[in-house]
Amino acid sequence: MTYLLVTNDDGVYAPGIRALHDAVRHLGKAVIIAPERDKSAVSHSLTMNRPLHVRKLEPDVYTLDGTPTDCVTIGMNKVLPVKPDLLVSGINPGPNLGDDISYSGTVSAAIEGTMYGIPSLAFSLAGEPPYDFETAAGVAWKLASMAMQFGLPENTLLNINIPQLKPEEIRGIRFTRQGRRIYKNAIQETYDPWGRKHYWIGGGTVHWSGGEETDDQALQEGFISVTPIQLDLTNHAGRGFLQENWKM
Amino acid sequence: MTYLLVTNDDGVYAPGIRALHDAVRHLGKAVIIAPERDKSAVSHSLTMNRPLHVRKLEPDVYTLDGTPTDCVTIGMNKVLPVKPDLLVSGINPGPNLGDDISYSGTVSAAIEGTMYGIPSLAFSLAGEPPYDFETAAGVAWKLASMAMQFGLPENTLLNINIPQLKPEEIRGIRFTRQGRRIYKNAIQETYDPWGRKHYWIGGGTVHWSGGEETDDQALQEGFISVTPIQLDLTNHAGRGFLQENWKM
Repeated sequence: MTYLLVTNDDGVYAPGIRALHDAVRHLGKAVIIAPERDKSAVSHSLTMNRPLHVRKLEPDVYTLDGTPTDCVTIGMNKVLPVKPDLLVSGINPGPNLGDDISYSGTVSAAIEGTMYGIPSLAFSLAGEPPYDFETAAGVAWKLASMAMQFGLPENTLLNINIPQLKPEEIRGIRFTRQGRRIYKNAIQETYDPWGRKHYWIGGGTVHWSGGEETDDQALQEGFISVTPIQLDLTNHAGRGFLQENWKM
Repeated sequence: MTYLLVTNDDGVYAPGIRALHDAVRHLGKAVIIAPERDKSAVSHSLTMNRPLHVRKLEPDVYTLDGTPTDCVTIGMNKVLPVKPDLLVSGINPGPNLGDDISYSGTVSAAIEGTMYGIPSLAFSLAGEPPYDFETAAGVAWKLASMAMQFGLPENTLLNINIPQLKPEEIRGIRFTRQGRRIYKNAIQETYDPWGRKHYWIGGGTVHWSGGEETDDQALQEGFISVTPIQLDLTNHAGRGFLQENWKM
């Protein structure tokens, strides 16, 4: 029997994960294991300072008082009877592009799955509210079935961003590279009731760079962006730079 | 004037950051901006759902009610008068090797610095308690000064692990690649006072793989491990795999 683990970082009640679950349940036994609450921007956090509790909400839907990474670890080791054949994470409302990938709980769940050798896909809907997950869910079904049919590069997950367009407006799929995202003035100043200055991170203007063949560019041109993301973070060319330039 | 930003994930009162601060303060104006509390394993979390408050504890020592990533963003934009010339993170008590890098707050602070174009080094003391940071602090001073003198590869930070040995026992420096870390049975089962089963992530046995030239191997042989870690997570060869194998 084919098993799929379905998770996200927005919590088990988010419409994006329900749309994803509905889309992939025809590919096998698809089980949701997702955080109780919104865990956006928790990145690859793992909860080790307290025990975690799994609750079954309905058939094939479980929730956990932890992070997306916790959900993957406990889901595959304790909830599912076997190691799943595929992990799908999302659908995140809003894009996960460029440098933002390293903050993303949606992507982190797929990193964790990949560490365990599970082919893993992270899905994001690149658009603005109000979000409509219908087209993206159809794309997710198609890409999940292709991942099962054709496989993934070794030790690699797919970070998938789908433009919020009608199906006939989407121009196709591009296999992209990760762009860079640069924020300007992304810290607001505010004051508490006692007049003390506080800083609030967020907002600001996004300045992109990276150019050709990036995730961002594909979306701007109406394509689905599929970026293969590897676990190995080593800058292999950088090792040569250090060996040559650093005089001991 | 040369500025250094000093941060960590264990909190401003941790002995490791004080040892690091003492070591690098001779290289320029070294300012600590660190979390109030232990933020280990928060990975690259960014706090965006509430304002953050900076407190000055003593000259050149600031603390923030947030994560290591928050400290870097707010430290360089709001606390320091200029963009720092170097960021140093740590010294973490215990190693940051292989797959664990992606969970590490120590390393995440250096990733954030690198995103802003600041040469960034993450330091960990690879040993067991009781930790003695003296030798590691001397190594940190030396490597920080070399980073300022010889530079780093572009868009790349250094993940540095120092064995807990006497200076004369350390065999030298190796420029390594990231290994893999595989845990077995790393989830304990426990029960709450009402008899409900809970899971507690942690413990278990560590199984390594990766072999030659890895961070782990260097440490086992008594070397300091210096791994260049890049921001670009794209598996560029993987793009070719997908283009060839995925039939649309």
